[in-house]
Amino acid sequence: MSEITLANIEEAARRLTGRATVTPLLESPLLNDRIGGRLVIKAECLQRTGSFKFRGAYYRLSLLDDGERRRGVVAYSSGNHAQAVAAAAKLLQIPAVIVMPADAPTPKMAATRAWGAEIVTYDRYRGDREAIGADLARKRGAVLVPPYDDPLIITGQGTLGLEVADQAAALGAHLDAVLVPCGGGGLIAGTATALTARVPGIAVYAVEPASFDDTGRSLVAGERLANPPLAADNLSFCDALLAPTPGTLTFAINRRLLAGGLVVNDADVARAMASAFSDLKIVVEPGGAVALAAALTGKFDCRGKTVAVVCSGGNVDAALYAHAISDATARV
Amino acid sequence: MSEITLANIEEAARRLTGRATVTPLLESPLLNDRIGGRLVIKAECLQRTGSFKFRGAYYRLSLLDDGERRRGVVAYSSGNHAQAVAAAAKLLQIPAVIVMPADAPTPKMAATRAWGAEIVTYDRYRGDREAIGADLARKRGAVLVPPYDDPLIITGQGTLGLEVADQAAALGAHLDAVLVPCGGGGLIAGTATALTARVPGIAVYAVEPASFDDTGRSLVAGERLANPPLAADNLSFCDALLAPTPGTLTFAINRRLLAGGLVVNDADVARAMASAFSDLKIVVEPGGAVALAAALTGKFDCRGKTVAVVCSGGNVDAALYAHAISDATARV
Repeated sequence: MSEITLANIEEAARRLTGRATVTPLLESPLLNDRIGGRLVIKAECLQRTGSFKFRGAYYRLSLLDDGERRRGVVAYSSGNHAQAVAAAAKLLQIPAVIVMPADAPTPKMAATRAWGAEIVTYDRYRGDREAIGADLARKRGAVLVPPYDDPLIITGQGTLGLEVADQAAALGAHLDAVLVPCGGGGLIAGTATALTARVPGIAVYAVEPASFDDTGRSLVAGERLANPPLAADNLSFCDALLAPTPGTLTFAINRRLLAGGLVVNDADVARAMASAFSDLKIVVEPGGAVALAAALTGKFDCRGKTVAVVCSGGNVDAALYAHAISDATARV
Repeated sequence: MSEITLANIEEAARRLTGRATVTPLLESPLLNDRIGGRLVIKAECLQRTGSFKFRGAYYRLSLLDDGERRRGVVAYSSGNHAQAVAAAAKLLQIPAVIVMPADAPTPKMAATRAWGAEIVTYDRYRGDREAIGADLARKRGAVLVPPYDDPLIITGQGTLGLEVADQAAALGAHLDAVLVPCGGGGLIAGTATALTARVPGIAVYAVEPASFDDTGRSLVAGERLANPPLAADNLSFCDALLAPTPGTLTFAINRRLLAGGLVVNDADVARAMASAFSDLKIVVEPGGAVALAAALTGKFDCRGKTVAVVCSGGNVDAALYAHAISDATARV
């Protein structure tokens, strides 16, 4: 596949029918009043396994041949891709090994195990998850399923963009812009491919946590830049968005299709999680809430515009969540 | 209207198209494994104004004539009906006065005000909200919109049942039973009317909090029984389900169509709220979580069955919610 096309994504959507959830596009008139524009929110936290990652994982695994299915798959992930690959593997009866950081959020690790996957842990600060994954795959003759830098994964994630286009049209919402959480860039690359084809003139923005704005900086520089190395004192609580650098494939697409990058801090994100709780009744994890945060803080100015934001996941510890919504609500 | 028919509810659904949200029917394979059956969850907390009440309120208000619209509406409610009437009134440009208990949950009162309604408070333990509402309506020449004991309100709520029937069929789920939270009985009366017509053989159960099981006891007795008078020491935290007695109209329908009543306690409900948080990523308020609680505790035995549960609302204080999910998650 030299380039990912709208037709590729439409084909992936057909494969996902009846497997992935068509997550709703929500709207709150009270929220619209507050921002002075029209906001439609893609509640992708309601997706199977609690994040968009199921789309790409299921699509990729559904295309394995019989021999590959027998030998199984290997994936590395901080949590959402892990659960997604584990769930897709279970549905398709394929053995799965997942490489996860030892300090991955408890619910993400527990869910991955509940889906029947074998888990191998590594040290987030010192280990090289890509090398560990590649090594495991070679030893077992298994297929490595990368989290984002893979044309089929990007194609699967793009099905979210198709749904947003259809659902916005059904609401009579003519989208000026879409804001998408960005880690390695797979979701936004697929979504931008679908949405720029379906909604001419739409501006697509990557939203990243402070200190992890590799995609935003890379878009400005015109080349792939890395984040500073992970250290215990520079971690954002957006654990899903800590990829070290844009992917090669994802950046080639994003460089062509994106309007730019936006940055939010952890306090902005906590307030967005609280708004999703009180205004929309959806549970959004930190990394899933960055796009909503950009809209609510005015870091993206929504006034007079119709804007879609993607809430990309909801896998979050109860204690962290309780703290975030109580704090943010108390401050409002 | 002498009897509410499926055709009446289908007509209401047409009126609500594009106004009410078609809330998703969610499913978690991990949850299914845990209960040993198939559970489909109607995420009605994602409805406009955060509860099913918008369906009945909008439908009722949409049928007012021009003179009635000018004179406005009056409603009494602990919170969810209040917001629903206020939102429907704003959409239809009708003035609204809402009678609320002075100790109604803060977010419910704030949202009612944000929708532009005038609020009149009363003492939950001593006041008679029906008399206050009737008096206000008479003085202003306004139409009183009762929370449940009204054929048009019941008809509007019944549209939820239609959606469950269609969505379950789309999932290939042949429903054996449906569990529905029950306060005054409007939601379940409408839902039972739609679902027993659409899904022959389905068993419909009312779920109520302990000490407020008036409908369950009335079904056994064959006549309308009241709960003990409200007192500060017998309040369930299911604030949406504290109606003193089944309605006359709702009970006439429920007596004919319901299979029975189930009772859950507040600890069961907190655990169900935590499961909705971690397994489904939806925010469910205590009164909205009683049906899920009945399924998860085995008070309704789901083993080998396909069961729909309605999560009917999500308007809950952040502090209470944080406490409920942290506590329940710690205990699992």
